[in-house]
Parts: sequence; structure tokens; C-alpha cells
Amino acid sequence: MKQWTKLKEHLAYDGWRKIIVRRYELPHGQVADFDIVGNGPYVTIAAFTSEKEVILTRQFRAGPEQVLTSFSEGFIDQGESPEAAAARELLEETGYRAENIQWLKSRRSSYSTETQHFMLATNCHYVQPPEPDALEDIEVFLLSVEQFRALLHDSKDEAFINIAAGYLALEKLGWL
Amino acid sequence: MKQWTKLKEHLAYDGWRKIIVRRYELPHGQVADFDIVGNGPYVTIAAFTSEKEVILTRQFRAGPEQVLTSFSEGFIDQGESPEAAAARELLEETGYRAENIQWLKSRRSSYSTETQHFMLATNCHYVQPPEPDALEDIEVFLLSVEQFRALLHDSKDEAFINIAAGYLALEKLGWL
Repeated sequence: MKQWTKLKEHLAYDGWRKIIVRRYELPHGQVADFDIVGNGPYVTIAAFTSEKEVILTRQFRAGPEQVLTSFSEGFIDQGESPEAAAARELLEETGYRAENIQWLKSRRSSYSTETQHFMLATNCHYVQPPEPDALEDIEVFLLSVEQFRALLHDSKDEAFINIAAGYLALEKLGWL
Repeated sequence: MKQWTKLKEHLAYDGWRKIIVRRYELPHGQVADFDIVGNGPYVTIAAFTSEKEVILTRQFRAGPEQVLTSFSEGFIDQGESPEAAAARELLEETGYRAENIQWLKSRRSSYSTETQHFMLATNCHYVQPPEPDALEDIEVFLLSVEQFRALLHDSKDEAFINIAAGYLALEKLGWL
């Protein structure tokens, strides 16, 4: 594949999210602008208790304007490792501490600068009430691995957003 | 979970992508603005030939500024069904026609208006050269199901972006 030649870029929107407009010369000579969402690296934490329960959260989300189900997720702070970010976000959002946290893999995105890091947290124990950010209103709940596997491919569900992280965790744990 | 009360919203950026700023009153009384990416519904097509090969594409992507690997994907046109969009995008991008196309499930997104529809295309046959959009520069390639399963959880790969669609297709086909 030929790389594209970037002619210029500028920040077109600078809010909580950013839009970067990048102008490229394509391999066949066309010149075109692309709107890119500027987003930092983040972790998605597939977390399991020592009783093989899956730790999930429910939150109202402003994109679809409905309650979605997810693993704990959060941006990685400057200088923080994915493992440390995962431990911090899991504890803040759910009150669970993981005995083991491991990075599984990462994934880039077509029209965003983001990198998603898939993390696996095992032997998690509830240690304290969640301490979410001021703007987070999070409900924590548990599913058995069997219930969770069914949720992953439930055609009636469009609210669980971390399907990739779920399958990658079950694959790593040998539970597929 | 309590729903949030939307106080107002406005279009803050209106390019190829859109940013919508939504102001909510949260359950505990705080008022806050959220930047939402405005994006239409799209299909991701996990496509297989009659010889159990997986049909994949490589393209330079302006978000990470590198070549990423994906299934065929594309926006659903106004009034088009997900099945019709999947057949159209698969043929345009890869030159393959599917004998069977089925919807597997959909997924919403936290900070975008989009809906991703996971589609399964089976018994695909190569019928004509790809006819990509003017700004697409796409390379088509095939993997065996075994190679594809390994790619899904390969920790050294961050370029394949449709991990959820891949596992959902293998789950549906009974190949996990």
C-alpha cells in the first residue's frame, strides 16, 4: 500500500473532543481533506472476580442518549502505564481491586487518533465504594461467565459496547 | 439508572464529521456539556468465501496515519436496509458478491450518534473488479479461518480494527 502524503493539518474544533482536518495527496493525485477525531489513548478493562463473575457498569451515555453497558474504561493519564490506568479506573468506577492486570492487545481506529488498549483484570475483590468522577453516574453489576458469553452475541442487545474486549478476555482465559 | 435531562444542544462543528454539544442536567443536579460525534449508521461485513476464506481489506487511514486492516465497512444510505448496504459495500470495495447476507447484531457508542450493524456474508464469490469511491485506495486479501482467528487475538497486531465483528461471525458460524 502506498502511504498518503500529508500536505497540512489544522485543529478545526477544540472542545472536550477535538476535530483535526488533515489534507492529503492520495496515490492517484487527488487532494482531499479528512476530519479526524482527536482522542487520547484509553484502556478497556475486562474484569473478573475470583468467583468467575464479570464486573460490568451501566451509565447514561450522551451519544445514543440511553443507558449503555460496558466494562470500566478510561483515558490513560500522561506518563501512566496502561496497567496503572486500568487498576485506577477499575477501582474508581467499581470499587474492585485486581490481583492481576495484564495487557492483551491494542487497536487503532480509522478516523480517530485514539489507541484502545484491551486489558484483562483477574481475581478482583470489592474493597471500597466506587469514587467516580463528578460527572459519572455509574451502576455496577455482575454477570456469570455464561450470562456474559450470551450477552456478547445477543442479537436483541445493542447496549453492551465492549464486545471485542469481552471475546479477547474469554479467549485469553481459555473460556471460548 | 436515572435518565439525564437535556437542556439544549447545538451543532458546534459541521464538516464531513459533526460535533454536537449537548447540555444535560445530571441526576445530582450538575449541569454539564458533552461533545458528541455526529455519525450515521454503518455496516461492518464479516465476509467469507465458499472455501472458508475471510475477505479483508487494507487501506491507509488518516486517523492513525498508517495502513489498517478491516472488513468492508460503509455508511447505510437513506432508506437502505443494512443487508442491502452490506451487499453494496462488499461488492464495491472487494468485487465479491455474497449468496447470503444476515444481520447479526448492532451496537451503540458512548459519545457518538452512530449505530454499528454487524453483518455476516457467506458463500461469497469474486464477480468483478472492485469499484471503490474516488478517495478509497483499497487492497483486498484473503486469510484462512485459522489465520484469521490468530489475527483476532494477536498481541503484536493493532491494525485489524473489526475484532468484535470477527468473533461474532465465528460465534454464529460455530467456528469458535
